[in-house]
Amino acid sequence: MVKSRVQKIFSYCDPVPDAILIKNASEPYIDKMFFYVTGLSTGLFEGCAAILFPDGNIHLLVSSLEADIARQSSVPISVYTTLKEFYETLRSLTSSCKTIGVSYQGVSYSDFLSLSRNMPHVSFQDISSACVSARIKKDAEELSRIQKACSIADRVMGQIPQFVRKGMTESELSAEIDYHLQKYGAQSPAFETISSFGKNTALPHYSHGKKILESGDFIVCDFGACVDQYNSDMTRTFVFGSASEQQKRIHHMVQVAQESGIQMIRQGVIAEDVHRQVYNVIAQSEFSGRFIHSTGHSLGLLVHDGGVGFHTQCRMPLEEHMVLTVEPGIYIPGLGGVRIEDDIVVTSDGCKLLTTSPRELIEI
Amino acid sequence: MVKSRVQKIFSYCDPVPDAILIKNASEPYIDKMFFYVTGLSTGLFEGCAAILFPDGNIHLLVSSLEADIARQSSVPISVYTTLKEFYETLRSLTSSCKTIGVSYQGVSYSDFLSLSRNMPHVSFQDISSACVSARIKKDAEELSRIQKACSIADRVMGQIPQFVRKGMTESELSAEIDYHLQKYGAQSPAFETISSFGKNTALPHYSHGKKILESGDFIVCDFGACVDQYNSDMTRTFVFGSASEQQKRIHHMVQVAQESGIQMIRQGVIAEDVHRQVYNVIAQSEFSGRFIHSTGHSLGLLVHDGGVGFHTQCRMPLEEHMVLTVEPGIYIPGLGGVRIEDDIVVTSDGCKLLTTSPRELIEI
Repeated sequence: MVKSRVQKIFSYCDPVPDAILIKNASEPYIDKMFFYVTGLSTGLFEGCAAILFPDGNIHLLVSSLEADIARQSSVPISVYTTLKEFYETLRSLTSSCKTIGVSYQGVSYSDFLSLSRNMPHVSFQDISSACVSARIKKDAEELSRIQKACSIADRVMGQIPQFVRKGMTESELSAEIDYHLQKYGAQSPAFETISSFGKNTALPHYSHGKKILESGDFIVCDFGACVDQYNSDMTRTFVFGSASEQQKRIHHMVQVAQESGIQMIRQGVIAEDVHRQVYNVIAQSEFSGRFIHSTGHSLGLLVHDGGVGFHTQCRMPLEEHMVLTVEPGIYIPGLGGVRIEDDIVVTSDGCKLLTTSPRELIEI
Repeated sequence: MVKSRVQKIFSYCDPVPDAILIKNASEPYIDKMFFYVTGLSTGLFEGCAAILFPDGNIHLLVSSLEADIARQSSVPISVYTTLKEFYETLRSLTSSCKTIGVSYQGVSYSDFLSLSRNMPHVSFQDISSACVSARIKKDAEELSRIQKACSIADRVMGQIPQFVRKGMTESELSAEIDYHLQKYGAQSPAFETISSFGKNTALPHYSHGKKILESGDFIVCDFGACVDQYNSDMTRTFVFGSASEQQKRIHHMVQVAQESGIQMIRQGVIAEDVHRQVYNVIAQSEFSGRFIHSTGHSLGLLVHDGGVGFHTQCRMPLEEHMVLTVEPGIYIPGLGGVRIEDDIVVTSDGCKLLTTSPRELIEI
C-alpha cells in the first residue's frame, strides 16, 4: 500500500529526484504527505521527516516522543533527540542523493532555508504538484476511510432534528454534533463545525456563536468526520418551524442546482463545466448573483485536498476515484442562506454519492 | 489594542521594514498573526492578508467570502476576487514601501516564491522572531481570553470522574470531554484531546483510540479549550479503581517535581533552570530517565506558542505576563505514564496558576 503510493508520487515528478523529503514543522504545519506515505492513522509527528526512494522504500526520522507510534507503520525508523542529530542522520541516509524533492507548499520558507544550510551539497526540487497529483485519485484503502467518515457524518446529520430545540445557541448545537461524530467513531471533527442560525447562515465561513435559535430561522449544519486521517464534509439546511415561501424557493433552487451538477459528473467531464452548470442554474433564477463560491473541492487527507475542484480555474477532466464535494449555496445578506453539500466519488459512468441523507428541506 | 500590538511587532524588527505583510495560505496554513493584529475571534481567512504599517495602522486584504466577518474588526479592508486582483491591490497599498517584513516561519516556501515574483521591486526581510517575541508577553485582552479558556478546561477536568465508567473506550471519553468544553463556551477543543488508558498512557503523543477502560488503568486526560482564538492546555492523571503502590509513587513524584518547578517561577529566573529543577527531581528518584520531554511551553494563539519554554535550549529570563505550561511526566513503557500539567502566568514575585483543579491522585 505504502510502497505503491511512494512510487505514484515519483511517477508524477519530472525530472525524477534521487529522493523525496517530507518534513513536518510544528502543529499546525504538519504535511499530510507524512500520513499518506506511511498509512499511519494516529500520531502528531512534529519535526519528523520521511525520506522516500524511487523503489518505493521509506525511512522515517522521528523524535523519541513519536518512536513507539511510528513503529506501528512497519517502516524502518531512526530516532533523533537533537536537531544536530536530525541533520546528521538525514545526511547519512541521503549520502548518495544529488537531487532531493521537497513540497514547497508543505514546508515553511524558514524550514526550507534551514534545510538548504544543512544540506549544502544537495540540489532541491519542488514536487508540490506531484504530491497533489498523487492524492487526487484515491486508492481502495483511502476510499474505505473516506466512506467511513461519510457514513458517520450522515448518521449525525440524520439526528439533527433530535438535537435542535428552541432557545439553544449555535455553539450548543455544534457541541452536540461534535459529540456524536466522535461517539460514532470519528477521531475528531474534520474541521470547525458550522452550525449557524438565522442571518448568520448568509455568511458561508461563519462557524458558530451565541445566537439563539428562533422560530423561522434557517439552520445550516456543515460538518464532517475525520477517520484515520481522512475527512468527510457535508451540509444540510433546515428551517426551525414552518418555512416561508421564500425559504422554500431558495432551498428548492439550491437542491435543483446541486442535482443538475451531480447528474453530469462522470469520467471525462471537465471539472469547471460542472461548476458552470450549477452556477448557471442559479444565475438564471431569481437568486442570480447569490451563489458566491465554487461548487466543490477535492476531499481526502485535507478537507480542501487540492488538485481538482468544481470551479472556474479547473479545466481538468474528471477521472475515476476522484473524491469531491458538490455544494452550491444561495446567500442573502440580512436574511440567511442555504447550502447543500454531498461527497461523491467519480465512477466510470457517473458518480457515487458517499453521503446519502435526504436533501429535501426539513422543517424541525 | 490592535494598534499597540502592531507597534510592538515593529519594535522587535531590526531593521524596521516599511511595512509587514501577513499572508495566509489554505487551512491549516493560517498564520495566527492575522488574529493577533486584528483581534478577530472568528473567521477562516484562507488566502487573506494583513498589511501593517509602523504607525500601527493596518489594512486587510480579504476574499469576498470573508468580507462580512472582517468588517467586525473596524480595520479598513479591500476585497479581492482573483489572485490577480489580490496582487494589484497589494502592490498599490505598498507602493511606497521598499522593504516588507514577512514571517518566514508563517509562510510556505511556495507562497514566498509567488510573493517574490509578484512584488519584484520589494526587498523582503524575515520577521519571524519579531512575531514570536511580540506574542511572548500577553496583554490584558489576551490574558482575559486565556483565563476563560483555562476556566473552561478546569471545569471539565473537575467532571472527569462523572464521565468515566467501566468498559468505555478512550474515544468515548474524549467525546465527553470535547462536548463539555464546547457546552461551557469553548469555540473548539484547543487540540486533539488526549484521553488514554492503561499502557497507552506511556505514549505522550497518543491521543485516543479503541482501548477499553479496565480496573487499575491509568487515565491521562490532556486537553484544552479554545476561546476567541486563545488556548488552554492542562493534564491530570487518574486511576480507575484502586491505585497500586507503584502508581501512587509515580504520581507523587510527578506532583512533587511539578510543585518544585512552580515554586521557583518568577520574573528574572532563567526558563531552562525551571526545567533543570523539575528534571533533577525526577532524575534523582527511582524513575530516573523516565521524564522524556520538556517541562513546558508558551501558550496563546497557538498551543505551542513559541519563543520561550521550560527546556534545555531556552536561556531566556522569565518576564511578567508570559504564559506557560508546567507539565512534567513519568513514562514507563508497557506499564503506563503520569503527566500533570497546569498553565501559569509569570508575575513580578512568582506566578499565578490559571488552572486550579486539584493535583492529587484521584481514584475513580
